[in-house]
Parts: sequence; structure tokens; C-alpha cells
Amino acid sequence: MKLVTVGTVAFDNIETPFGKADKVVGGAATYIALAASYFLKDQGIVSVVGDDFPKGTMDDLRKRGIDLAGLEVLPGKESFFWSGRYHYDMNARDTLETRLNVLLDLDPVLSETYRSAEYLMLGNLDPVIQAKVLDQAEAPALVAMDTMNFWMDSAMAKLREVIARVGILMINDSEARQLSGEHSLVKAASSILAMGPKYLVVKKGEHGALLFSKERVFFAPALPLDEVVDPTGAGDTFAGGFIGYLAHSGDHGFNNLKRAIIVGSAMASFCCEKFGVQRLLELNREEIDQRIRQFVELVDFDIELV
Amino acid sequence: MKLVTVGTVAFDNIETPFGKADKVVGGAATYIALAASYFLKDQGIVSVVGDDFPKGTMDDLRKRGIDLAGLEVLPGKESFFWSGRYHYDMNARDTLETRLNVLLDLDPVLSETYRSAEYLMLGNLDPVIQAKVLDQAEAPALVAMDTMNFWMDSAMAKLREVIARVGILMINDSEARQLSGEHSLVKAASSILAMGPKYLVVKKGEHGALLFSKERVFFAPALPLDEVVDPTGAGDTFAGGFIGYLAHSGDHGFNNLKRAIIVGSAMASFCCEKFGVQRLLELNREEIDQRIRQFVELVDFDIELV
Repeated sequence: MKLVTVGTVAFDNIETPFGKADKVVGGAATYIALAASYFLKDQGIVSVVGDDFPKGTMDDLRKRGIDLAGLEVLPGKESFFWSGRYHYDMNARDTLETRLNVLLDLDPVLSETYRSAEYLMLGNLDPVIQAKVLDQAEAPALVAMDTMNFWMDSAMAKLREVIARVGILMINDSEARQLSGEHSLVKAASSILAMGPKYLVVKKGEHGALLFSKERVFFAPALPLDEVVDPTGAGDTFAGGFIGYLAHSGDHGFNNLKRAIIVGSAMASFCCEKFGVQRLLELNREEIDQRIRQFVELVDFDIELV
Repeated sequence: MKLVTVGTVAFDNIETPFGKADKVVGGAATYIALAASYFLKDQGIVSVVGDDFPKGTMDDLRKRGIDLAGLEVLPGKESFFWSGRYHYDMNARDTLETRLNVLLDLDPVLSETYRSAEYLMLGNLDPVIQAKVLDQAEAPALVAMDTMNFWMDSAMAKLREVIARVGILMINDSEARQLSGEHSLVKAASSILAMGPKYLVVKKGEHGALLFSKERVFFAPALPLDEVVDPTGAGDTFAGGFIGYLAHSGDHGFNNLKRAIIVGSAMASFCCEKFGVQRLLELNREEIDQRIRQFVELVDFDIELV
């Protein structure tokens, strides 16, 4: 298998200043795998849902080439549920409710096919779970991981153990500051790269993303959108486009990581256009190529030094 | 004269989470003219100070080729004074004190040399004053202006009159939202360009800047810095580098505006490295070219669509 993603598969209630959607399908692994599905077919999800999870959505995922053998369905239990409300500026949100439900039972056991995956994406989850998946991976060419401030507050030691074992850490700017204790993102990156990862991706939402290696830095903008309907899952969609493009190309050099960041940014821009994963189910190649061309255009300039 | 800038010339007290500086020279016109001085020599300032303003600083400005015939010195009066404190994230600040002092007497009368200036930069000031300068300009090739939320709250009608008469409006993202009543910056830009200006520049501080025409959009990042000592004046420095580069090149096409935005961003990055205008007094060509090359590198990528 090319790519295995571990992460939540869930229901979300979402409120924005401009709209509301109840019990839409969400979850990090869902967004990641859907975004990656536009670049590769040979991928699977490791997660758990209750028997309330819609069969129709499982069919939609399978139609996009996503293997669900690693998605456990627990009878008589409810899927993970998250409810949140966005602030007016859409860059911040409050969690209204979290029901872990089946997530309490997640104890991933990977099949042989999954254990030999070339690429591993550790979605935001308890670092104990992320470590269990990592332990079972045989010899992945590349491991990327996401995490969040919650695990920095509650499980820093374990989190640091996992971070030390991955090639690419993908977090947002405030998480990078918290993890490193540095205000400057340049200093934060230097401190985090010393913890183990070869690359750090700092996600800044509507302000774009930064890619750091020990020697280099790259900045990708977010596309200014006419309308942001729902930013939920944009960070995971970014990660999915990123890892999907990398796994497809098999090139982990800095220049190709820059391309992957642009692809991730393009996919994330689609994600915001409708509630939940809706937009990620209906894209086509031509739309994606057109969007990537907009990114090329957006930052393109030439300058001659005087 | 090539460029005339109207704006404040002032003293600032600045507190950041990491340091403090008292009674440093600041003011929009000071930052603008100093940044522009690296691209052209034939420029002047229209402003007013008290006789407390240091002669040494006036000499420093003159040494950088800035004409001060339009800088009135009012005997027995004090210069405009601003005091502010930055939040931990350096993107927000609180004004602690504003003493208008001589600014209450500012009633600009431009000499013939100033009236015939090819480029006009209206720094953030009462739109009544901005209009008075504009009224006296004979036939400027290009007028750019800055403003702030304060004038939107207190003098919107007059402000809109001035905005309708300029070619380029330069404001920050929250001001663009307030001026247009639109949350989306794309919609905000479209609404603001319908008010008169041909171009809108949206400054986003550490998150870069956007340039909008009716048909096109360009994004320039801010350079991630090791250390931000003092962001005061960074927006004005950006404007100064921008208008200085434009005035020097004489080309107002979108592609050259993109270059001017990069130059402005490079100059703004220097501004943040020390308190006040200090860094802008000591730059050299090689440092600036080197910084611009960092911007080229920062956003450069190539991608082949699959």
C-alpha cells in the first residue's frame, strides 16, 4: 500500500457567522484521505466509527479508491463527534462539545498490507495511538504527522517521543510557538527541527503556510477566496494534498516539498468552499490544475536588482 | 520634484514584550521618506514639528537626500507624540497616549516645486489635510494614500472623497474590511476599487501583503525574521519602499507594482530589526539587494501539472 493514514473519522456540527451544518461527516483521516485520493489510488485509513456512520459515505470513500479495511466499525457504539463555532474572522473557533465515543476504543492493529505502507500520515490524535501505528510500520519511506496544543498541554513527553521519529511535522503557528517556547517562527523552526523531524510545515490558515528545513524556508500563500463557507478540515485537507502529492511523486527533496505545499494549499482552498467534505467528493482534475495555476499566478513576479 | 510625502514627523514611546524605547524619532512621513530615499533622491516632506525636534535627525534626513523645505518648525511648540505597547504576538498594539501638539496647526501650503511633484504619498492623517495637499498638486502621475480605522469611524464622508481621487489605496486587512463592510478580502477589494482607486494594497503585517486590481491579484509574503524588535513604522516603510521604487521606475503597470510590493516588503523587514527609524538610516544597496533575493527565494517554486 502506498499511503496509510491514521486519524479520526467523525461527525461534526459546525456553526459559522454565515451558516450552520449539523452532523456532517468530518474527521482528520476523512479529509486527509479524500484530498490524497486525487493524487493516488492505493491508500487506506486506520480509524474507528460506530454503526451510526453512514454506509453511503463509506461507499463514497471507496469510490475514491480509499481502502477501508483498517476502519473498524463498532456495533452499538457512536462515532466520534465534534461541535464548534467559528468567530467572525473565521480564523478562530471555540469547541462547543467533544464526544470521544468510539475513539476511546481505538487500539489500531495494522494488517500486513498496511504495515508495509510506503507513506504514513499520522493525523492529530493521542500520541500514544500515533506511536502504536508507527511501531507497526515496517519501513516507511516517509512519515508525516499533525498534532495540536491539547497534546502539548497533556502529553508533552510522549508527543516529543513521536515527533523525534517522524520526517515531517505539520502544525499551526501558535502550536509551533508553544512546542518550541519561541515567539519567532524562524527560531521555533530551528528548535523543532532539532527535536528530530527533517522538515517542519507551519500552517497559518488564511495566511498561508511555511516550509522549513535546517537550511531553507519556503512560503506558500493561501488563495484569497470570494467566500469561506467552512474552514473545518482545511488543515487536514492541506496535509492530504501534500502527502498524496509526495507519495505519488516519490521525491522528498525540498523543491518537491514546495510543490506539495502548493498542491496542499490548492486542495485546502476547495475544502473551505462548502460545509464538511462535500467539495472534496466532487472535484475533478481540471479544476485542481486550474486552481494550482492560480497559485502560480498569485505569487509570480520578476525583479531585476538595480 | 519627484515625490512629495505628507504625513507625521513625530516622537514615539514604544514598549514591546521584549524591550522599550523612549522618545525615538518616528512618524509616517519620516519612515516613508527614509525608505524611499534608497530609490530616489529628489523628494520632500510636508509636515510640522515643534522646536523640540532634534537638529541631528533633520541633518540625517537631509543627508539621505530628503528636502525639508516643506517641514515647518513651530517655535515654542512640541512635536506630535505617540506612545504604544505591543501585545505578545506583536501583531496588535494598544495606544497608550497621543499628544497631537503641533499637528493641530498643520495647514500645508506647498511651494511651486512641491506642487509640481510627479508622485504624491498621502500618509495617514486627517483626510481634510490629505485633501488640502491633493488640491494643491498640479498634475501628479500617481497618488497613493494610507489611512486608518480612526478616520473611518470619525470622518468617513471626507475620507471617501479623498479615496475617490487617488490611484492607490494602501490599508491593512481589518481596515479594508471596515471600509467595505465585506469580510472576504476579495469582495472587500472589489468594493473598494469601485470607490475610485485603480489599485488596492492590503497590508497584513507579518502575514505579507496583497495587491488587487479589478482583474488581478498578487500576494507578497513577509520575510520570516529571527527577531522582531519593533514593528512600529513597518507599514509606512513598506509604503515608502513601494512608492520610491515606483517613482524611480516610472512604470505603473501591474507587473511593476508587484515588484514595488516586494521592494516595500523588503524595506519593512529591515524596519522591524531595530527600534524606530534606526535601521533605515544605516542600510546600503548590497543589503537591500540581498534581502530582495531572499524574497525571490522564499516564494520561488516550479510545478508541472500532471
